[in-house]
Amino acid sequence: MAERGRLPPREMRWWGWGDPAHHAALPDHALPWLRERVGLDDRVTPPVALERVRLPPAGLPENLRDRLVAIAGADGVRDDRAARVVHAAGKGYPDLVRMRAGDGASAPDAVVLPADHESVAAVLEACARVRVAVVPFGGGTSVVGGVEPLRDGFAAVVTLDVNRIEGLTELDERSQTAVVRAGTRGPALEAALAARGYTLGHFPQSFEFVSVGGCVATRSAGQASSGYGRMDDLVVGLRAVAPAGEVDLPARPASAAGPDLRELLVGSEGTLGVITSAALRVRPRPERTRYEGFMLPSLAAGMEALRALAQQDLAPDVTRLSDEAETEMSLALAGTGGVKGRLARAYLRGRGVEEGCLAIMGWEGDPERLRTRRDEAAAVLGRAGAVALGQGPGRAWEHGRFAAPYLRDELLARGVMVETLETAGQWAGLPDLYRAVGAALAAHAPLVACHVSHVYPTGASLYFTFLARARRGEELDQWRRAKAAATDAIVAAGGTITHHHAVGRDHAPWLPAEVGASGVALLRAAKAELDPEGILNPGKLLAA
Amino acid sequence: MAERGRLPPREMRWWGWGDPAHHAALPDHALPWLRERVGLDDRVTPPVALERVRLPPAGLPENLRDRLVAIAGADGVRDDRAARVVHAAGKGYPDLVRMRAGDGASAPDAVVLPADHESVAAVLEACARVRVAVVPFGGGTSVVGGVEPLRDGFAAVVTLDVNRIEGLTELDERSQTAVVRAGTRGPALEAALAARGYTLGHFPQSFEFVSVGGCVATRSAGQASSGYGRMDDLVVGLRAVAPAGEVDLPARPASAAGPDLRELLVGSEGTLGVITSAALRVRPRPERTRYEGFMLPSLAAGMEALRALAQQDLAPDVTRLSDEAETEMSLALAGTGGVKGRLARAYLRGRGVEEGCLAIMGWEGDPERLRTRRDEAAAVLGRAGAVALGQGPGRAWEHGRFAAPYLRDELLARGVMVETLETAGQWAGLPDLYRAVGAALAAHAPLVACHVSHVYPTGASLYFTFLARARRGEELDQWRRAKAAATDAIVAAGGTITHHHAVGRDHAPWLPAEVGASGVALLRAAKAELDPEGILNPGKLLAA
Repeated sequence: MAERGRLPPREMRWWGWGDPAHHAALPDHALPWLRERVGLDDRVTPPVALERVRLPPAGLPENLRDRLVAIAGADGVRDDRAARVVHAAGKGYPDLVRMRAGDGASAPDAVVLPADHESVAAVLEACARVRVAVVPFGGGTSVVGGVEPLRDGFAAVVTLDVNRIEGLTELDERSQTAVVRAGTRGPALEAALAARGYTLGHFPQSFEFVSVGGCVATRSAGQASSGYGRMDDLVVGLRAVAPAGEVDLPARPASAAGPDLRELLVGSEGTLGVITSAALRVRPRPERTRYEGFMLPSLAAGMEALRALAQQDLAPDVTRLSDEAETEMSLALAGTGGVKGRLARAYLRGRGVEEGCLAIMGWEGDPERLRTRRDEAAAVLGRAGAVALGQGPGRAWEHGRFAAPYLRDELLARGVMVETLETAGQWAGLPDLYRAVGAALAAHAPLVACHVSHVYPTGASLYFTFLARARRGEELDQWRRAKAAATDAIVAAGGTITHHHAVGRDHAPWLPAEVGASGVALLRAAKAELDPEGILNPGKLLAA
Repeated sequence: MAERGRLPPREMRWWGWGDPAHHAALPDHALPWLRERVGLDDRVTPPVALERVRLPPAGLPENLRDRLVAIAGADGVRDDRAARVVHAAGKGYPDLVRMRAGDGASAPDAVVLPADHESVAAVLEACARVRVAVVPFGGGTSVVGGVEPLRDGFAAVVTLDVNRIEGLTELDERSQTAVVRAGTRGPALEAALAARGYTLGHFPQSFEFVSVGGCVATRSAGQASSGYGRMDDLVVGLRAVAPAGEVDLPARPASAAGPDLRELLVGSEGTLGVITSAALRVRPRPERTRYEGFMLPSLAAGMEALRALAQQDLAPDVTRLSDEAETEMSLALAGTGGVKGRLARAYLRGRGVEEGCLAIMGWEGDPERLRTRRDEAAAVLGRAGAVALGQGPGRAWEHGRFAAPYLRDELLARGVMVETLETAGQWAGLPDLYRAVGAALAAHAPLVACHVSHVYPTGASLYFTFLARARRGEELDQWRRAKAAATDAIVAAGGTITHHHAVGRDHAPWLPAEVGASGVALLRAAKAELDPEGILNPGKLLAA
């Protein structure tokens, strides 16, 4: 456990992203570019002090509090200001806007930290008995309102933080399967697996803070998921507990024993049960990694190249293609100084690439096969007109792969609305989906950028970032309009409402469009069965 | 459609397997071997004549019959003897025993053949109104009692045959996705795809008769599923209709929009709805195929080699490893004469392989990559002590890949109980699972053979065949005891109760052991939502 000292802290700053000790700042050269393209406040507005966050009175029924203390211990039940505030919201733009302004109205009445599966069952039983809502909470990184306590119709709301249910409990090397407790954070899991020579290979941008349970509950995808597979591909078994019982599906490679109930719990977002552990496919740690940049002449050409790679089973483990706007933004915001951006542009011009779309391609594995796969993929990219930029852009991407959320805080402080959203569609419809969502967002934001981040044989995901000058005092309305326009456009163009951010509170109104009335009815029936009082994460996934 | 003349007939012989024009016979040299190892009747007992099959009176309420005729046309509602008998059972051993003996007690009151999705909805509505059970029927190849009409508690039972809902309706070449109607048979689909240069790559042993809807509803796996993926991997969207509504999940490459409801309908075995079409991932037809034989020194060594192949992403598209008993049986029953078996043995002896385990490995794809993959896999096999036998055994396997079910009829006629069952487990537990099931079956059958037929990174399937002298007049009890012993052993050893045969009637008593009480409750809740009267395929998947 000596390594634990190097792991990120378990608790993020309450008003923004990440490690409180880490201070990211936009590079000087980025400010004029942003001012011109988006607009910036001249001065930085800091978040209010923790003491000034407005909180509702903590209203946990006294006998329930006693019961929770009996289950989780005195230090396992917290209703102090710091605990309530840090559990009041996830990390979406509207969450950060509210928290920075000191609006803690959504804070839970208390936070309970059970230590094991059985304690979770006891907490759920105690809360169900008095109809107190329970919000499961892992890393707290949701960007779709997935962990925001909503108390509509409930006397009180408790956040059930799984962070004490932690650790790698079993590593079956022959079956390359690890059993991991739900509260295990990304870096802690990778450290434990690395000590045995393995990796999960799951690296969402939120990697430093995500919990395994949260990843399973939200079908998360990581930056290397084109190679390692999404979290839903990695789950081979799981254990969850609900007010009406528990679901225990042991690790199995495949089965035809009826509907796959694992797929009902995966993605259930805390509404059907609390996932307490998962059996996950792991792989030997790659001997070598190689991340490279390529410049594609256009997004259309790049998409076609990615389609060829995916359909020929040649997709790199990391496959990411930025559109022209994101390519420009990346160069403009490059953190190591404007010199670098200028040098990069000069280099590209020298290679005959005036403009274009930057792709980051990453390979992991044994050196020989990595080389073969890389060369085969590079040949496909070359035929699409790609110019190889070498490993420099790859290393820069690797260096900053988890850093973007820190920059977002800086942008918010400068009065910028910055948000991301994602979808996925079949290849045939992807160009139209891209144009439709881009056009919808362009009406709300002067800067809209996109990348293709995950590829499949039948389609790919699109990940949009959009920036606009925040309208002070109307930030939430402004965001809501942009979000609704984009999601309406996604639905109209046949995309999925979310590729890896999950549904949460933000996408719930569009779930009926995604799965139909019968789909919603099936989810409600499953919930009624496992959670008859409806206490689990109310208002998420299924709109009230 | 000129090719249609070469397709197998759509209706199988009612008392056994396959094309009525195809007459398989055990080779002469096989009889003494079988007589010694298993026991054989001296004379062949033919099935009773169709006219002598005992049928219950057709008891469809007259007004329902009129309604069905209005929906499906006069020729779309059949209650003649031939139609009722051919829809009375699937193709499992107990089904064949009963049908050969003229026991048609399970025949439906009528067979309805709606022509499209809307007509299916109308049939379900009409039947639900008067509480008449409905059994969805595609190719009728179930070996687990999945299509047997059970009338417990219902006034009557109608088989809903989807065979008129047929054809490839859309091929999106850019997304490599085909939309296929449920009644499309394997050969018809492959012919339609081949005309456009594509393949689904799904070849269960029952390929010649399976329907796409049946494959989706049962999570079937094919002989090349180690390469192409199981049916559940190939489904990217589907449409189903239930008495209480319809489920329409368009093709999507991936999504995080909550639980994957596609995985609830896939494998639902006609109990939640009637699947009317599916969007399936297709691939370009392989330029070349190459099937080879390898002899492994032992099953343990072979399993380890397969594990290495699967975990290094080197599994051949067809991966099949027989144990010693199955290897011996294959040589003994080889259809082209005992000379061949003797020659094969002499050849093996010459290569220093006195005994061992035969593996069939198949590669499909472009010639260059096929060669690379083949050589890398052969190197792994070589390190495990495999002796390469060349393409001869591969060609023999390919020639007979869909023929085994015909031999079964011959064995039944000779008084042999012959049955197959399958499971899957994690690699670490696979040797124990193999031993446990083998030991359980050995108490009921003198000949028990097994092969590993599908490999995954975390585990593999085991497919058992067992033969015993049938006890005349007690065949069903004899079978039931062997089946129960094997399934109990599977559950105790941590295997899944079925890898690709589905649950049906035969495995339903063990489903609670597979998915737990909450799992069963979830399935019942889903059924109550979509099929509140419980008319859809009663007694299947969920035991009464």
